[in-house]
Amino acid sequence: MEQDMWDSLWINCHLCTLQDDGLGIIKDGAIACQGEKIIWVGPFSELKASPEKLAKEIYDLNGSWITPGLIDCHTHIVHGGDRIEEFNLRLEGASYEEIARAGGGIRSTVKATREASEAELLAAALKRATALQSEGVTVIEVKSGYGLNWENECKQLKVAREIENHLPIKVQTSYLAAHTIPEEFHGNGDGYIDSVIEKLSELKELGLADAIDGFCEGIAFNPEQIEKLFKSAQKLGFNLKLHADQLSDLGGAGLAARYGALSADHLEYSSEQSVKAMAQAGSVAVILPGAFYFLKETQVPPIAAFREHGVPMAVATDMNPGSSPCCSLLMSMNMACTLFRMTPTEALRGVTLNAAKALGISDTHGSLEVGKSADLAIWDISSPAALSYYIGYNPLQQLVQAGKTIVQ
Amino acid sequence: MEQDMWDSLWINCHLCTLQDDGLGIIKDGAIACQGEKIIWVGPFSELKASPEKLAKEIYDLNGSWITPGLIDCHTHIVHGGDRIEEFNLRLEGASYEEIARAGGGIRSTVKATREASEAELLAAALKRATALQSEGVTVIEVKSGYGLNWENECKQLKVAREIENHLPIKVQTSYLAAHTIPEEFHGNGDGYIDSVIEKLSELKELGLADAIDGFCEGIAFNPEQIEKLFKSAQKLGFNLKLHADQLSDLGGAGLAARYGALSADHLEYSSEQSVKAMAQAGSVAVILPGAFYFLKETQVPPIAAFREHGVPMAVATDMNPGSSPCCSLLMSMNMACTLFRMTPTEALRGVTLNAAKALGISDTHGSLEVGKSADLAIWDISSPAALSYYIGYNPLQQLVQAGKTIVQ
Ligand SMILES: [Zn+2]
Ligand SMILES: [Zn+2]
Repeated sequence: MEQDMWDSLWINCHLCTLQDDGLGIIKDGAIACQGEKIIWVGPFSELKASPEKLAKEIYDLNGSWITPGLIDCHTHIVHGGDRIEEFNLRLEGASYEEIARAGGGIRSTVKATREASEAELLAAALKRATALQSEGVTVIEVKSGYGLNWENECKQLKVAREIENHLPIKVQTSYLAAHTIPEEFHGNGDGYIDSVIEKLSELKELGLADAIDGFCEGIAFNPEQIEKLFKSAQKLGFNLKLHADQLSDLGGAGLAARYGALSADHLEYSSEQSVKAMAQAGSVAVILPGAFYFLKETQVPPIAAFREHGVPMAVATDMNPGSSPCCSLLMSMNMACTLFRMTPTEALRGVTLNAAKALGISDTHGSLEVGKSADLAIWDISSPAALSYYIGYNPLQQLVQAGKTIVQ
Repeated sequence: MEQDMWDSLWINCHLCTLQDDGLGIIKDGAIACQGEKIIWVGPFSELKASPEKLAKEIYDLNGSWITPGLIDCHTHIVHGGDRIEEFNLRLEGASYEEIARAGGGIRSTVKATREASEAELLAAALKRATALQSEGVTVIEVKSGYGLNWENECKQLKVAREIENHLPIKVQTSYLAAHTIPEEFHGNGDGYIDSVIEKLSELKELGLADAIDGFCEGIAFNPEQIEKLFKSAQKLGFNLKLHADQLSDLGGAGLAARYGALSADHLEYSSEQSVKAMAQAGSVAVILPGAFYFLKETQVPPIAAFREHGVPMAVATDMNPGSSPCCSLLMSMNMACTLFRMTPTEALRGVTLNAAKALGISDTHGSLEVGKSADLAIWDISSPAALSYYIGYNPLQQLVQAGKTIVQ
């Protein structure tokens, strides 16, 4: 009895499988897909027959490298407007008053997002998602957080879900109503958080959000408010994430860990105590160098402590119009290495396996393993570190998402 | 008598003509090309007839922006090997000795460049030039400087010239034999400079170099050596350029100005005196934020002084394997704004008209003007500042070089 032939087989390639503590490198490897999944991965020498007998379609890569499809685990790509004029005015030396008068700050994005139709939001988000995909990204997380009321937060999440119907990319959504206090609740953070909590069970029923997120910071919500939100969300079975310790240490990362959050994100000011709590909880540290760079911050996240205590680190773009207008996950990897001294191996783990963990999808994504989704990024590079080394150079050669070639 | 019809006409667009001290913006403009040149540019309302009567091919851009094709006026894209393993080792915590043993530093690039064939150098350079072009670049400067002997420096320059035969992009070359002292002349900078000078007249006859460049720095050549080189080069009628004041103030920018150099480049440590000398000489300050970023330098160039004294500023990638593996001129613009607080207007002037001045080709390139080369970059953006605002996002919609559409 003959075995069924595999759909596709890649040979003459090197693999970063992510199946060990490093990159799980297999030199002279081979990988095969059947339908949407990986069906075989290993050294070429262990293939049981010649390639022609094993697969219908064979790709001879002549020494290219294959990594899992990249995962951008923290983005805000669904939003209205841009903040280009604010950027321009600030560099032209305008005062804060002039910028505010010109409609600067997060409020301008909230206004533009509320005013935008779903179609407008989708068109703009698709451009950003396409830019990410062109560099090998097969999974993105997308947050709400610029609607700041039930109707508009849901609108953002619906648009995020809709992306999958227009682009072969997997989308995970996070409900970030607790992003900032909207004008309607000026000075009444408690009241706003209560209004957010009120809607959580309806949100759960609608299935619009894969996780609940918040922003724990002096300029946003205090730890007590976040804790209240997390308690309710946890009862409903939501995964949790948190923007924590970006501008000051309010203990946000430790709080997130206490609630078993999938991740705490930013973390420039996290204390060693918080790092230890994250290690114990298995929470992922999502490192966002784009915002650090764009805001010209000086306090770097405690990379050495995460390393020492075994906290998995992810790297993401944080693509958003105000603090990280970054549509390049490769550039985020370079910044993680250049600005935060992460190693290229850590950066690549950070956009594959650890990014999958930060989204709670590491059972199906983030590594080259039999049974996982056939998401393959194929690169014309001499070694995996090349992906972190270049600034603004895209060596993607072929991209496969769920078994289908989408960029070649 | 009917007028000859223009080849192409772009309408429903906004123009950055660069024809004034700012961006020379024309809202609701139109621009026409005939052969390789711009034949008409102005407000749409001033067209003398309806578009169909004026041009054979009409592009309706629906509100897009047109800038001159971008110019990357400082690159080292012709070189052998890469420095990825060195980058990796350094971040993995290897000592300088380990890196040196693994073949790190500029010497490894010299070795790889000497060992590479012209075909190998060309193939690698074309990838980099293509990456630049994909973001709207129509002119690049390319330096030698990794051959460090007559044969191999010429090999680099020949390959640089050869790029034009494979890619529709204009190449200007600079002879940078005075990049560093080669091993053969260890400790004998004077002797090496003499050997470089000896070959200048032959270089002139061969027509391989559009300018003579040098690196004036403690780790390279002292001002006396550079001055000797410049004197000989000037007698032969070469244009001059200089890597100056990157790591310390040796007065390099002032020296370049005294010899009427087209540009001095880097300039982090330039004194006000040097800035004034550059203003008087009309030398362009070429700002290279990629190297500043990648090397984690802290001393920023005196942008305010350049501005105050009226020194034209250009922005370039400095694409090279050791200190700026950057293939994105848009990212360089973002870095110029984010890290050096240049304005988006200055950044865009810096990659168009002022970059043309830095190459001595502003009579034919760098602005949208009748009679200049029809190099048009057409962008899907809401305002010109968008080109400096995004990190890793390429809004190029169409690219025209010397009248021919090459990216669409
Ligand atoms: Zn965020
Ligand atoms: Zn250089």
